[in-house]
Amino acid sequence: MSDSSVSRRRLFGYAGAAGLGGVAGVVAGRASAANGEAPVAQDVVGRTHSPYGEQQAGIFTPKTMTGELVAFDLAPDTDRAALGRLLRAWTGDIVALMTGRPPAGDFAPDMAQAAVSLTVLVGFGPRVFELEGLAGRRPAGFQDIPPMAHDRLQDRWSGGDLLAWVSADDATSVAHAVRRLSTDAAPFASVRWRQRGFWRPLDQTGAPVTGRNLFGQVDGSANPTGDLLRETVLSTDDWLAGGTQLVVRRIEMNLDTWDEATRSRQEASVGRDLPEGAPLSGGVEHDDVDLAATVDGSPVIALDAHARVSHPSQNSGRRMLRRGLNYTAEEWTDAGLVETSGLIFSAFQANIADQFIPVQRSLDQLDALNEWTTAIGSAVFAIPPGFSEGGWIGEGLLA
Amino acid sequence: MSDSSVSRRRLFGYAGAAGLGGVAGVVAGRASAANGEAPVAQDVVGRTHSPYGEQQAGIFTPKTMTGELVAFDLAPDTDRAALGRLLRAWTGDIVALMTGRPPAGDFAPDMAQAAVSLTVLVGFGPRVFELEGLAGRRPAGFQDIPPMAHDRLQDRWSGGDLLAWVSADDATSVAHAVRRLSTDAAPFASVRWRQRGFWRPLDQTGAPVTGRNLFGQVDGSANPTGDLLRETVLSTDDWLAGGTQLVVRRIEMNLDTWDEATRSRQEASVGRDLPEGAPLSGGVEHDDVDLAATVDGSPVIALDAHARVSHPSQNSGRRMLRRGLNYTAEEWTDAGLVETSGLIFSAFQANIADQFIPVQRSLDQLDALNEWTTAIGSAVFAIPPGFSEGGWIGEGLLA
Repeated sequence: MSDSSVSRRRLFGYAGAAGLGGVAGVVAGRASAANGEAPVAQDVVGRTHSPYGEQQAGIFTPKTMTGELVAFDLAPDTDRAALGRLLRAWTGDIVALMTGRPPAGDFAPDMAQAAVSLTVLVGFGPRVFELEGLAGRRPAGFQDIPPMAHDRLQDRWSGGDLLAWVSADDATSVAHAVRRLSTDAAPFASVRWRQRGFWRPLDQTGAPVTGRNLFGQVDGSANPTGDLLRETVLSTDDWLAGGTQLVVRRIEMNLDTWDEATRSRQEASVGRDLPEGAPLSGGVEHDDVDLAATVDGSPVIALDAHARVSHPSQNSGRRMLRRGLNYTAEEWTDAGLVETSGLIFSAFQANIADQFIPVQRSLDQLDALNEWTTAIGSAVFAIPPGFSEGGWIGEGLLA
Repeated sequence: MSDSSVSRRRLFGYAGAAGLGGVAGVVAGRASAANGEAPVAQDVVGRTHSPYGEQQAGIFTPKTMTGELVAFDLAPDTDRAALGRLLRAWTGDIVALMTGRPPAGDFAPDMAQAAVSLTVLVGFGPRVFELEGLAGRRPAGFQDIPPMAHDRLQDRWSGGDLLAWVSADDATSVAHAVRRLSTDAAPFASVRWRQRGFWRPLDQTGAPVTGRNLFGQVDGSANPTGDLLRETVLSTDDWLAGGTQLVVRRIEMNLDTWDEATRSRQEASVGRDLPEGAPLSGGVEHDDVDLAATVDGSPVIALDAHARVSHPSQNSGRRMLRRGLNYTAEEWTDAGLVETSGLIFSAFQANIADQFIPVQRSLDQLDALNEWTTAIGSAVFAIPPGFSEGGWIGEGLLA
């Protein structure tokens, strides 16, 4: 994030999941000149983000209409030096793709396009820190998520040594970027899994909103804002300083049984109403839930409500920044076509062991939403800080 | 399509694949008031189309950012009357969804959203005309595509008794609509296949464009326009009058071998340049290719160029309206993760036997693109005409 966008955020003092769009990230020359006066939506969609900054783009930049997370396994002979070569090549690709130019050697140069809010976020999986010369560099608290009682993890949606998370308003641009990054990775790493998702960060008037998951819930309202956001997300640890740690969970959502629940039970399971995402204890979406509120001696926010169990006050102040994407998928099985829906859950925090894991342990035991949700994939990535012109992603670790 | 949009189209005399956005379809109250003065992009994205008109929406309405085609198999006990009940229920769903209201009985009413260019196009597969009382109603020329030499059809991407093709600028809205339609269909029909695709109908300035497939080609430049478009697409046959016939082909595109071809060979295989989609014989994108042009005695447009082999002059004037969507997908096989890319090809015409089939036979024998493309799915649907308030889709066949 550039200094100018930091000060913009400080100025407005607001960076909720919806508001992130309006205040964070860097606009490096909007190409949508045909649009005339900037509508509010232009803070969120149709942007050209700078590839340069203290953080990689794709953390604080607004959520996009579409995105794809691609995890790679390192080839057996990819050592620290080879990984550095790949990261230098990827950095060149990313600078070009984000600014709408074709990367060097691109086989489809006509597909490069600015003003589609394209970002590429790169991270390292745990096995990177088993490479010779990197054993002592594993960030504090960076570890796989231990098994939870409700997990039904599948290997094919889990793990990975490298992550490239491409976000954009346009899936053709995402496909082009993924193709370029995968092709350049091929000598060093092979694709382990790809997860495609989508989100709607605008309402029907074009105003930025938090957006809904496929249960119809407004999802992301409680994300931290302002200085708290930076404290929550950003590491101060050695080479990772200015970077962060990312948890990706593929969470299947059972829409059939969810639809069978009454609307009031659905709302009680979260502690927020469905129309606006407002706390059931009163107020509007971005107000805090009032865990002490009672009606007839009973808590308004149920003891197993997601908003209570995950609330910082119940978790020694632990927080994270969530940035989920919806997905739908099918599989052909022996039993026929099986349709699934869910959320590509992602959470950024400075320290996975200190933040995500204890909160998730509570949720695993208590969260009412467990009735309808199941984690089927899990992966963690250390997200190096951003880079300046001439620098490259991961330089602090690999150079 | 309403009378007003027909006359608009006649006025402008222009309805190419890109231009379709600007001139066809009906805007029933734009909800994007926050955007102030209408930029050009507003002719294509962020629209609220009317569900009513001479044609169903989703044929002449602009291509959208995302879409999903869902094919259903009829249950054994779904007869003509039951199919009529389903179509009446779907019509109610579609009127609500397209206007941004939750359909009756919707379990996720908060997800309904206007101004996302949502359309739902419904069609009947061949087996509908085997139902009692409908045997004599099969439209002339409506038939499955006979096997072609280059086909590698998979049952799981082929066939289907019913189609619901949901288009929108927003995949969350598409998922919500598909869920609603599938749920209401459940007593009558089960999902056979779902194909998700995406498209980029704007350039980076926000101006409407034809858009590119994943080979990087501008795809759809030669679509007919004006009165020729209506003659090409619209049936005059009995109950189908004002409707059309649709071919859906899932076409896998081998990006690896395509990338190995030189750029000039790539351009020669189509007969158009890659940057603009302009004919290699000169001019700009929407100019006709000059099949007679020669250089040093050789044809400029190669004998096996896609634009020549598919040209109406080589096919007794036969045309179609193409409306493809890009896709990417993976499969886990015994050999590991296999990544694929391709096009959900679709073509509208008045008569499949007279239009698509003979053109496709020529392409199957001669088209240079066959080296890199393979049809892996094939389906046909009769698309009933549109409906007015109080009417329902398929009424002319099923009432």
